[in-house]
Amino acid sequence: MNIDVVILAAGQGSRMKSALPKVMHALAGKPMVQHVIDQARALGEVNLHLVIGHGAEQVRDALNGQSLQFAVQAEQLGTGHAVAQALPAVADDSLVLVLYGDVPLTRPETLQALLKIAAQGHLGLLTVELADPTGYGRIIRNPVGDVVAIVEHKDANDEQRAIAEVNTGIMALPAAYLHDWLPQLSNSNAQGEYYLTDVIAMAADTGVRVQAIQPDCEQEVQGVNNRAQLARLERWYQGQVADSLMAKGVTLADPARLDVRGELAVGQDISIDINCVFEGVVELGSNVRIGPNCLIRNSRIGADTLIEANTVIDGAIVEGASSIGPFARLRPGTELANGVKVGNFVETKKARIGEGSKVNHLSYVGDAVIGRDVNVGAGTITCNYDGVNKSLTEIGDGAFIGSNTALVAPVSVGAGATVGAGTTLTKPVADGELAVARSKQSNIRGWQRPVKRS
Amino acid sequence: MNIDVVILAAGQGSRMKSALPKVMHALAGKPMVQHVIDQARALGEVNLHLVIGHGAEQVRDALNGQSLQFAVQAEQLGTGHAVAQALPAVADDSLVLVLYGDVPLTRPETLQALLKIAAQGHLGLLTVELADPTGYGRIIRNPVGDVVAIVEHKDANDEQRAIAEVNTGIMALPAAYLHDWLPQLSNSNAQGEYYLTDVIAMAADTGVRVQAIQPDCEQEVQGVNNRAQLARLERWYQGQVADSLMAKGVTLADPARLDVRGELAVGQDISIDINCVFEGVVELGSNVRIGPNCLIRNSRIGADTLIEANTVIDGAIVEGASSIGPFARLRPGTELANGVKVGNFVETKKARIGEGSKVNHLSYVGDAVIGRDVNVGAGTITCNYDGVNKSLTEIGDGAFIGSNTALVAPVSVGAGATVGAGTTLTKPVADGELAVARSKQSNIRGWQRPVKRS
Amino acid sequence: MNIDVVILAAGQGSRMKSALPKVMHALAGKPMVQHVIDQARALGEVNLHLVIGHGAEQVRDALNGQSLQFAVQAEQLGTGHAVAQALPAVADDSLVLVLYGDVPLTRPETLQALLKIAAQGHLGLLTVELADPTGYGRIIRNPVGDVVAIVEHKDANDEQRAIAEVNTGIMALPAAYLHDWLPQLSNSNAQGEYYLTDVIAMAADTGVRVQAIQPDCEQEVQGVNNRAQLARLERWYQGQVADSLMAKGVTLADPARLDVRGELAVGQDISIDINCVFEGVVELGSNVRIGPNCLIRNSRIGADTLIEANTVIDGAIVEGASSIGPFARLRPGTELANGVKVGNFVETKKARIGEGSKVNHLSYVGDAVIGRDVNVGAGTITCNYDGVNKSLTEIGDGAFIGSNTALVAPVSVGAGATVGAGTTLTKPVADGELAVARSKQSNIRGWQRPVKRS
Repeated sequence: MNIDVVILAAGQGSRMKSALPKVMHALAGKPMVQHVIDQARALGEVNLHLVIGHGAEQVRDALNGQSLQFAVQAEQLGTGHAVAQALPAVADDSLVLVLYGDVPLTRPETLQALLKIAAQGHLGLLTVELADPTGYGRIIRNPVGDVVAIVEHKDANDEQRAIAEVNTGIMALPAAYLHDWLPQLSNSNAQGEYYLTDVIAMAADTGVRVQAIQPDCEQEVQGVNNRAQLARLERWYQGQVADSLMAKGVTLADPARLDVRGELAVGQDISIDINCVFEGVVELGSNVRIGPNCLIRNSRIGADTLIEANTVIDGAIVEGASSIGPFARLRPGTELANGVKVGNFVETKKARIGEGSKVNHLSYVGDAVIGRDVNVGAGTITCNYDGVNKSLTEIGDGAFIGSNTALVAPVSVGAGATVGAGTTLTKPVADGELAVARSKQSNIRGWQRPVKRS
Repeated sequence: MNIDVVILAAGQGSRMKSALPKVMHALAGKPMVQHVIDQARALGEVNLHLVIGHGAEQVRDALNGQSLQFAVQAEQLGTGHAVAQALPAVADDSLVLVLYGDVPLTRPETLQALLKIAAQGHLGLLTVELADPTGYGRIIRNPVGDVVAIVEHKDANDEQRAIAEVNTGIMALPAAYLHDWLPQLSNSNAQGEYYLTDVIAMAADTGVRVQAIQPDCEQEVQGVNNRAQLARLERWYQGQVADSLMAKGVTLADPARLDVRGELAVGQDISIDINCVFEGVVELGSNVRIGPNCLIRNSRIGADTLIEANTVIDGAIVEGASSIGPFARLRPGTELANGVKVGNFVETKKARIGEGSKVNHLSYVGDAVIGRDVNVGAGTITCNYDGVNKSLTEIGDGAFIGSNTALVAPVSVGAGATVGAGTTLTKPVADGELAVARSKQSNIRGWQRPVKRS
Repeated sequence: MNIDVVILAAGQGSRMKSALPKVMHALAGKPMVQHVIDQARALGEVNLHLVIGHGAEQVRDALNGQSLQFAVQAEQLGTGHAVAQALPAVADDSLVLVLYGDVPLTRPETLQALLKIAAQGHLGLLTVELADPTGYGRIIRNPVGDVVAIVEHKDANDEQRAIAEVNTGIMALPAAYLHDWLPQLSNSNAQGEYYLTDVIAMAADTGVRVQAIQPDCEQEVQGVNNRAQLARLERWYQGQVADSLMAKGVTLADPARLDVRGELAVGQDISIDINCVFEGVVELGSNVRIGPNCLIRNSRIGADTLIEANTVIDGAIVEGASSIGPFARLRPGTELANGVKVGNFVETKKARIGEGSKVNHLSYVGDAVIGRDVNVGAGTITCNYDGVNKSLTEIGDGAFIGSNTALVAPVSVGAGATVGAGTTLTKPVADGELAVARSKQSNIRGWQRPVKRS
């Protein structure tokens, strides 16, 4: 049976106080609406409809190329009206699942359960029990447990207000019902809006069973209306990620001080110190140890690697058994073979560094290919940029680059070659050669120190 | 009507275990007593009296120049005695507000409400309901709700101990009452002290109404007696700041990991990653994004600027659309025009850097004026200090400074000029010129590596 | 009376999902079993028996040289069986205390109280009241309060299940009892194991009194079975450390963001900003102020020192009144005299730096002895390594090292000497001399910038 998922993403979200449409605000590094889309895709083959309105162009541009059908809701006339904008593109024999772009964390398993109800010709409704249901529409059930009505808070009597189970708005049902019912919605209410909720009453009237299910936890149906709610949901999500990592055998120095914004794959016996942030797709091999205050993005860190405090890694591949930091910065295109050492105040970029090589201090290694067992001295700079072009520096196996050396690319240093400290290297060095460019040192006696200017 | 605010700040605070007088301990970067002073000033024109004792000189020196009247309480004989020290400088027709230097967070609105009561000839008393009132003086009210007595915990019967409303000691009343009552205070109690609290009974005796009001929350009247209480109040305060920033539309990755010690002004759609600290007066323009673990002090960061992880900024002006960090350090006197890039392991100080210029890596730029579209290569050092004097480096628009270059100030590089990598520049370079100081490279075959010393 | 402490450390801890034996996982930087050992040692002269099994070699190797007797439990047949492995080495007239390698935080005072009971010929049992005792063995007491039985959860009736007091397994008793009882243990139970718990019934049967005491708090008897429990206990422990530091008069910006993994000794009026980590043995003198995100390991930081943000210190001695960071890294063997300044992007290693000297920016000072009042310019590198040997750099009092200078060790700079900026120094400089090695600067007119390669 075809599944059409309609995601409502037209709201302004004025309480966000933002120029960005609400659904584009990120949770765990990903726009909320993208979470919803990804969860819908996890259901299998589905037709995805996105109802957009406020900031429609921004949303459309940001989600470009994801095989989504956009329906524009020019005026925000209510949730029923929103769903109606997508309905022309939905076949009558389809199942429709209605989701919300600002309710980012509903689990696919929960959605699947709703669709299963819909597949039986019923209306599947997601409800939740709240400690404080004030303000929400209460769920009224009949003796056999089916939902027969949703009573808005303001219309509820005392007995109804005591009901803790409330409507989330998330539902699944045969498209045919919606095709029938949505045109019958009325906007004769205080807000002058067409409410999707009113289909519950229509279901009851027409003898369609409404079966409600609940999510595993409240956060699955938590909507975001302001930045405080966004932050709360973010921290809850991060807590879940931390729990999941610990269950896999990761040691976290402080589960409350971990941020994973993307996918973090882990081997065995990894330890992560306080305050680390992971972004994009990051893979950590077994026995990787990460010190405090590190930021790692889109990188693969091989087994037995030690990453020391205050290190930033982005777009790097580290084969394994390397030692990085503290205060190292690996930029995109960095590839470290086994057993490499990148030390403090070192930046690498588009640099392949061979097995056992060391760049221990205060260096910039960019656009470089470095062999194995090379020692790059402190203060070494690859001069890879002449103002318009980037050029390559090549250093052979076992070479020794003295400290405070500038390697003016394109330039090559042969295997086993040595570059003397303080050299500005402009010409290639053959294997085994010593290259040095150094002025004669003059010692001048009787030198008078500068005096303080008045 | 004149308002005289008497702030009690004479206590030793022995539980702080500190050489610093208790009221000088900082909350959110500001001494507690300064919070109290600032809140009193927020009431409008007031006479401020500070009763000092322990560490009187330290307090006086620290608050120098703030138009405060200091009254020294040589011996600490109780709160009533403390207020009495300030009273000779208070006119009879004034209103007196009594505050405490170790109760830092009472809102001006709350104080205003107390003064309003005092202005009507009553005694305004601030009370608070505590979940656990053990140890505090209970508030006894008469049937119309006026306070008629405060019963100390040790003197209270079971019924009185069940009262959750307790005295905070903060009060406002006509000065004339105090002039009458304070001389009548007795120290016939276990501590041998003169308690300000006893004026409540005197008010009741003389038919002066005592009206009690409550603060918005308990923290408004929270006193600090030890570092744990100070830390708790600090975290509560920081939580309030985080809430306020989120309400203004700032995205906080973790509201529990934000510290603002001063004033943080924000534009629209700012995002602040985990663990950032703001000190002094900081202004962030719209769309500023700040990465994790940054410290920003007394700076203005213009719109659309990206500050990457682990960056420290102090006393800088960043016009906007710049990219700073990670691992950058901007020191006082740094001014970045639009679209500047300051990269990793770069320090700037008293440096103006023009539009579109880049200082990407491992450089020190101090006492410098750099034009627009300048590229400062990796490892560039402005040698601004000769041991006694600081001198200026000037670099013209479009210049290109090669890597590993030392610019011995005073020195200038003309517009469009180029300095070759590895140069120690000691003489000026005219517009468009290439300057280079470089030794000839010698490549020596048959070089023998050093051998391991035994 | 002899005390034999038997620590059970043979379990696999499969829920840790680790290649490391469970008891070797670290809490606050120290293996859990080491915590237990240290607490046992705090009791005075004791014989320590460690029953090992899973990962026996790893545990034995890690604890090598600590005067422990190891007993190998080849098959894990229950706690009674485990204790029995150690028993042959225990004299009949000894007292036995049974502890668990995965229950790391029991206080010595609590253990002492158990031993006191045992010394009277009774069995001392540690029990705890849990809010949710589900799953634990309930403590059944007789009218005079002695324990008469432990009823396992699955065997308990409703009345017994309502008992909140449960068994922790920690006990002390005369060895003679164990010698009698352990051989009588049966494994006729669902798990087919020999349970130490069954000695309680044997005590009751033979008229030995079982007296139970409780720990100060639940965490004292908290066992660790997975990484989430380990993290929770870690955070609780760190909270205790924070409380203890605050009680000593340390200001913590956020007690929840402090990690002490070892011993931190503190003077008066220290302040520690957010997110700092201390490892090993660290000593902080009075008035030391530490900025955010610092990591300090095995170091002594003298009074009045300021450590700025994002600084990493390991194995250093800082006499006092120094200023370090931000972004400084002091490595082992660093010794700073009074009033030294080590600034941003500076690494020191095996370096003694004299009073009042400054290394302010972007330098590597390794294997160096620097006198007093020396100024080391930005970008200075001690070239201490020639690929095989490390050599020393010596700099005399009052010397001035220009920026971007390479000091090729072994080399010395005399007192009051000056090294010109950009110099690669290879020969010694006498007192007062100026040394400079610098190429003549050529300015070339009509220079054509490189063009973009297609």
